[in-house]
Amino acid sequence: MVDLITSKMDENEDISNRKRKRSKIMLVARDIFSKYGYKKTNMVDIANAMGINQANLYYYFDNQKQIKDQIFLDCFTNEMREFRTQIIHIMDENTAIQEKLTNFYVFKLDYTLSSEIIKQFYQTFDFKRIPKVKRKEISELLDMERSFIKKVLIEATKKGEVKSMEDEEIGKISQILINQYLGIRYQNQVNYFLSDIKPDLDEMKGQLRTAIEYIFQNIMV
Amino acid sequence: MVDLITSKMDENEDISNRKRKRSKIMLVARDIFSKYGYKKTNMVDIANAMGINQANLYYYFDNQKQIKDQIFLDCFTNEMREFRTQIIHIMDENTAIQEKLTNFYVFKLDYTLSSEIIKQFYQTFDFKRIPKVKRKEISELLDMERSFIKKVLIEATKKGEVKSMEDEEIGKISQILINQYLGIRYQNQVNYFLSDIKPDLDEMKGQLRTAIEYIFQNIMV
Repeated sequence: MVDLITSKMDENEDISNRKRKRSKIMLVARDIFSKYGYKKTNMVDIANAMGINQANLYYYFDNQKQIKDQIFLDCFTNEMREFRTQIIHIMDENTAIQEKLTNFYVFKLDYTLSSEIIKQFYQTFDFKRIPKVKRKEISELLDMERSFIKKVLIEATKKGEVKSMEDEEIGKISQILINQYLGIRYQNQVNYFLSDIKPDLDEMKGQLRTAIEYIFQNIMV
Repeated sequence: MVDLITSKMDENEDISNRKRKRSKIMLVARDIFSKYGYKKTNMVDIANAMGINQANLYYYFDNQKQIKDQIFLDCFTNEMREFRTQIIHIMDENTAIQEKLTNFYVFKLDYTLSSEIIKQFYQTFDFKRIPKVKRKEISELLDMERSFIKKVLIEATKKGEVKSMEDEEIGKISQILINQYLGIRYQNQVNYFLSDIKPDLDEMKGQLRTAIEYIFQNIMV
């Protein structure tokens, strides 16, 4: 009996030890991907930085296939979850609706453009290589924006900050805002690739502010 | 003297013959790229379809480097020039401004999503491989949208169809429209890659119409 308990305790310790190690691998990998980029990073770099050998690295992963992709995508979803945590604070602030939405998008731009992992996910990583299992998680993380905006608009309607709107109109406005942000990001990426024009963060923020102002001219009471 | 003239005539004929052949290569290449995709197409396929051998194909190009890229990018710029020709007709129609802009974007969506070459340019082709010389040409072709929209808005201002606006405001509205279109396209691409959701052309057109309506609520007289 005692032996069974001890062995169970050992096993639990093993599992939590493995989890801890995996978290550490993620932190190290994040730095290495950020520094060298997805393409140039290989597993040896990560193992070296951990002070273990490459074969040992594989011990910490259940699925032995495409471990580099797995680590990279986990880094990406970690960054997005961190973003969600931070964005909740902005959404809970007691600010006027237009300011709140502007803050949300300005923060999103800052966060997205300062994260090497997020940039690489969009610029270098081939989406087709994302395993089915991971796609759902990523889709949901990318879609949180829509529910945030809707929630904020519904609250503002209830508070009488904006005119009374049906769900359908709220949906349309959310879509316009989402498209606006994506368009600004995409244009920037194309400019960068075609003309080596570095993203002008102030210009991008200005475009966001202008678009939000325009939309709010229609719904303010 | 006679010999010199004859030789000059021969040379001219050679040049125009070469040009004709090059146009034919472009037409054949367009079909092959459309059918097999950029990645899977190789020069042998194009030479075979032309009924010539691969070495002969090279004769028609001044720059012997990356001929596949050259042909593909020429196909792309041809498609964009064709688009410009067709779009000029829409812009010259005697329709109300809101309808004109809606027609422009609906046509752009239809054209872009039905052209395999344009799709491949955005989805498969690595922009970093576009030679400097070609980048300027492509940037200008992509930027024609901005000048079209501005022109149409300025005309509508003069005709009194919309409220009087400074150049700055016209610039802002053009930017919102451009971002809106890009956002819709980009979102669609991401959805397609992440969730295998095929582009829903009607949904995209609906989003464009809604956005244009929203913007026009602010500027109609």
